Amino acid sequence: MNLRPPAVTVIGLGSMGSALATVLLAAGHTTTVWNRSTHKTQPLLDRGARPAATQAEAIAASELIIVCVLDYDALHAVLDPVVDSLAGKTLVNLTSGSPEQAHEADSWARAHGVDYLDGAILTTPPGVGNPEMMFFYSGAPATFEAHRPTLAALGDPLYLGTDPGLACLYDSALLGLMWSTMTGWLHGTALVGAEKTAATTFTPVAIRWLSAVTGFMTAYATQVDAGRYPGDDATVDVQIAAIDHLLHAAASRGIDNALPELLKTIMERASAAGHGSASYASVIETLRNPVRR
Amino acid sequence: MNLRPPAVTVIGLGSMGSALATVLLAAGHTTTVWNRSTHKTQPLLDRGARPAATQAEAIAASELIIVCVLDYDALHAVLDPVVDSLAGKTLVNLTSGSPEQAHEADSWARAHGVDYLDGAILTTPPGVGNPEMMFFYSGAPATFEAHRPTLAALGDPLYLGTDPGLACLYDSALLGLMWSTMTGWLHGTALVGAEKTAATTFTPVAIRWLSAVTGFMTAYATQVDAGRYPGDDATVDVQIAAIDHLLHAAASRGIDNALPELLKTIMERASAAGHGSASYASVIETLRNPVRR
Ligand SMILES: [Ca+2]
Ligand SMILES: [Ca+2]
Repeated sequence: MNLRPPAVTVIGLGSMGSALATVLLAAGHTTTVWNRSTHKTQPLLDRGARPAATQAEAIAASELIIVCVLDYDALHAVLDPVVDSLAGKTLVNLTSGSPEQAHEADSWARAHGVDYLDGAILTTPPGVGNPEMMFFYSGAPATFEAHRPTLAALGDPLYLGTDPGLACLYDSALLGLMWSTMTGWLHGTALVGAEKTAATTFTPVAIRWLSAVTGFMTAYATQVDAGRYPGDDATVDVQIAAIDHLLHAAASRGIDNALPELLKTIMERASAAGHGSASYASVIETLRNPVRR
Repeated sequence: MNLRPPAVTVIGLGSMGSALATVLLAAGHTTTVWNRSTHKTQPLLDRGARPAATQAEAIAASELIIVCVLDYDALHAVLDPVVDSLAGKTLVNLTSGSPEQAHEADSWARAHGVDYLDGAILTTPPGVGNPEMMFFYSGAPATFEAHRPTLAALGDPLYLGTDPGLACLYDSALLGLMWSTMTGWLHGTALVGAEKTAATTFTPVAIRWLSAVTGFMTAYATQVDAGRYPGDDATVDVQIAAIDHLLHAAASRGIDNALPELLKTIMERASAAGHGSASYASVIETLRNPVRR
């Protein structure tokens, strides 16, 4: 049994790739780095990383290659010329992209005899190495299991399934949740701010309220899976009545209402589809059946 | 010192008013109830509530009157005819409405010698009586302090300030946050659901992610109060690039994209206003300066 952490190669040394390499070095991995522009390499060499003159030389140094570049076009620009050197190795792709791009990269890797995992990083560069931060992986389970100990140095590795698009899909879904939540929070912050309430006063209350909201989400997830949305607690029609107070209060304080207006439109579509007496979870039926625009 | 809990009158016995009266009875308060239609009264009389033939008789029974009716129009319809009987008493109004309606009700109460608190209930009827649930109050601090022990039976009473509109304002702001969050969550649930991921599988991951998001909110609240939005971690322009993956993945799965499209538009407005390299918190500047439509 080899107790020495396995060698890893990191390709792409933007702020995220550099954070990945830094954490791997700190965890004791022999870490070889490569970046298209070489000035990003020096700070990592100073921390003990091994240089590589070419991407082929970087790939030759390790069995596990982690790539984190700007997008999938950059990935192919860097790796296509040297794909033969990847044969028999494992490529973990932490580049941001769409599930379709992940599928395409998986097919490309498969065609060249490369074990491929697609991944997504649910934190900013300073969060890399924090075991509470989520990293998503999808692809062959044996490939994930073989490298789980190494990947665990970067954050909490969550394996989502064999479909290589799942990591990107979850990533996009959760970023959408983040933007929705943060924009709703900023709208509320602007609203109470119009009455001289500080954001730092309002936000702890908002965060406490979000923990109640996650309770609704847990209950509603069961409703979504069952396809039945009993409106025992609060119905869509009750929410439609309540959103007018928000629209009125925000409009009279000069705050942009595009977000709550859209939310009201979505609720009204749910009500018109027969979900007025159902719970808010029924809105998913509306989202699954877009209006032709 | 009177150790017996003070008498309370509850006017309005919809599902929320009935929950309030039920909890007060359970806490040992002599509780007098009145409702426009009398059939809602009987279940509470069975639990020991005292009946009142008229709203004036109900008001006469207690120094503290809690009212929770459909809207402020219903409030005035019920209380205007008997406002003289409220003089010298405390009216706690838990009816949902706008800050402007709360201001108007406060002026009306003041003109008739009534101590007035406006309130908002941040839970559904089954949550009443749970000390973790938030109840907001605004108005004269002495009035709040005088009745805090009674109000604490209903949930955690949070006093927001002397402006009587604050309870409604916070209520609307937090409901807006809830609708934004739940719609974003349902959009993500529909997205991963298109690839056969159950809502009950996705939701615990989404909830874990939301706790990371609340960390961003805490950091960004300080930025909002300072009016400066350093984009050290993730900039608006980086988010704009990432949202295209969500739009693409959702569109190709037949999911309605009105919400993420609007979020992208809001981000692009922030970027166009010079916040491209700033943090997402800078979006509040855009929300405070609506586009003329
Ligand atoms: Ca990826
Ligand atoms: Ca109110």
